[in-house]
Amino acid sequence: MMALAGRPLGCTFAFLDPSLDACAAPLGELVHAEFDDAAAAAAVAARADVVTFDFENVPAAAARAAAAATPFQPPVAALQRCQDRLDEKRLLHELGIPVPAYHVVDCRASLLEAIDRLGLPCVLKTRRLGYDGKGQAVLRSQGDLEPAWHQLGGQALIAEAFVEFDAECSLLAVRGADGARRFWPLTRNLHDGGVLVLSRPGGFSGELQARAEEYVTRLLEHFDYVGVIAVEFFLERGSLSVNEIAPRVHNSGHWTIEGAVTSQFENHVRAICGLPLGDAAQDRLAVMFNWIGELPERARLLEVPGLHWHDYGKAARPGRKLGHATVTASDAALLNARCEHVVALAGGSWPARWARFQAGVPG
Amino acid sequence: MMALAGRPLGCTFAFLDPSLDACAAPLGELVHAEFDDAAAAAAVAARADVVTFDFENVPAAAARAAAAATPFQPPVAALQRCQDRLDEKRLLHELGIPVPAYHVVDCRASLLEAIDRLGLPCVLKTRRLGYDGKGQAVLRSQGDLEPAWHQLGGQALIAEAFVEFDAECSLLAVRGADGARRFWPLTRNLHDGGVLVLSRPGGFSGELQARAEEYVTRLLEHFDYVGVIAVEFFLERGSLSVNEIAPRVHNSGHWTIEGAVTSQFENHVRAICGLPLGDAAQDRLAVMFNWIGELPERARLLEVPGLHWHDYGKAARPGRKLGHATVTASDAALLNARCEHVVALAGGSWPARWARFQAGVPG
Repeated sequence: MMALAGRPLGCTFAFLDPSLDACAAPLGELVHAEFDDAAAAAAVAARADVVTFDFENVPAAAARAAAAATPFQPPVAALQRCQDRLDEKRLLHELGIPVPAYHVVDCRASLLEAIDRLGLPCVLKTRRLGYDGKGQAVLRSQGDLEPAWHQLGGQALIAEAFVEFDAECSLLAVRGADGARRFWPLTRNLHDGGVLVLSRPGGFSGELQARAEEYVTRLLEHFDYVGVIAVEFFLERGSLSVNEIAPRVHNSGHWTIEGAVTSQFENHVRAICGLPLGDAAQDRLAVMFNWIGELPERARLLEVPGLHWHDYGKAARPGRKLGHATVTASDAALLNARCEHVVALAGGSWPARWARFQAGVPG
Repeated sequence: MMALAGRPLGCTFAFLDPSLDACAAPLGELVHAEFDDAAAAAAVAARADVVTFDFENVPAAAARAAAAATPFQPPVAALQRCQDRLDEKRLLHELGIPVPAYHVVDCRASLLEAIDRLGLPCVLKTRRLGYDGKGQAVLRSQGDLEPAWHQLGGQALIAEAFVEFDAECSLLAVRGADGARRFWPLTRNLHDGGVLVLSRPGGFSGELQARAEEYVTRLLEHFDYVGVIAVEFFLERGSLSVNEIAPRVHNSGHWTIEGAVTSQFENHVRAICGLPLGDAAQDRLAVMFNWIGELPERARLLEVPGLHWHDYGKAARPGRKLGHATVTASDAALLNARCEHVVALAGGSWPARWARFQAGVPG
């Protein structure tokens, strides 16, 4: 999606990807190598004007190898800091940005300490390489300790207080090479099994938007950041705390392709190329549906007016994000009617997800 | 632009193009061959599910070779009919669609007859291969005859009455494999030296829109057409007559990428793939600027909020269409202010063109 946004700007692309069927491959030159292949990263960098990433688990050594040869944005320091939940939380704390209470877990004894301090329920997570709810376990009672330790023990862990949030929302922001900043509107998200399934921008107060922007500004300025950042927040009784930071374009910002004047992808490319940033205002009402594991029937979904289809060209696999659709409409009632149509056509878990989302059930 | 719209729909592309730096090449597989290479056309067709074109001078023999192997849309008959101005006008006449008076010119004597019948001024045009004002000459006085004959004589020609039009506008339409039709709003166009420079959708009466749609429907149904068609109209004292037909996506429809719910490119791909058509409603105010011969300075233009940049990745050459920009805004005053900003930054002929366009001067 970054390449699709970047080509009209006049950019060409080379991609480093370990999979031979990398979905970006048809849009540029594919360098087929593992993400930890520092030599390959340096080789890709050597033929580029600027290097970036859309996946935060790029090994820092490969990122540094690329950054030695070529401008690399967002900064390697931001990438590296966000790869470890503990480092990330310490930074947020330093910057005065609220985070749920947490406790480092490096042995059984410290797990017991964590439960003592945070109470139950709490969430045990790997410090590194977790995503989409992977690498974590919710501890609801003492009986959950052994299975969780069996599953996750032996890795660097962190325990986090369980936030009884009212909503999970994310703020997408971009900072240009000249220090200019743009913020898209706060987007409400719904997850299912830890994976994002629905996103809807708008609907939050101006005050909450301003507070989120203020927090994210501290992060952007701390890193002298260039590019798009996504910060996931818990909203709990009117207060925001950070769940996690993604130093990259983000799934909850996919609606910006059709719903905003400038998409997250275009603004990321503009930023890393040193171009002026585009307007991040939302100018179409939008809801995004994530297609996970399988795509619903394209020909039926395309009958829904205002539905924009995004097939990533990936082979189907359980749990894999294969595409998404964004539904736009000129007013909220029409948008809801169209979403209900989508949900009926997509079937499966969708009617239940949509009912939760509409009812404001957090998840 | 068709490939950029088609990839999110899940389509992959192969292109037949005689130029090695074909701007679509990075978006798929390039088969490097001349347009009249019927064997190459058949070879491309053999690896595709459907074949289309974005250029109406594809030789009919190559189109037929491709169509023999693979579904080919829009129909070869439509392509062929629109390649000859005389055939096109005869069809329009048969279908009861107004066209300016014309006269076949195949010798000097018939040129004199044409002037006798049509009066002066009139326009002498080649029947085949004309585009962007090429292959035509305006005859304003008897003194223009010899130079025009010197320039164009020896080819099959047609003379057309000179229409003192109030506006040139185009209707973009699409017809699906199931016979469904969608129409984008009539778009006002301004040309400079025969080349489109500005397009702005909207601003025409519902009655005029309905009349244009009725005419274009006759063409679509005549050909059992599948895909996008563009029909250029002269508007003269409230009446429409057809200037020419382009059986393909069209430059005056580029604003649909950002300004309509579904772009001409996406709907063309949907149509030829047998998918349901998308909504063609305009949902953002928009003006398109065509970049011809050279691109203005990207970094400065991108400072204009709501400006969407489209660089085709072509080498600069006088008269060549290198890209375009579409400016969108939430209201007409803001749109005009942004366009004035663009015009000031782009310089050259732009302030004069914009003044003509704003004043409603036809061209």
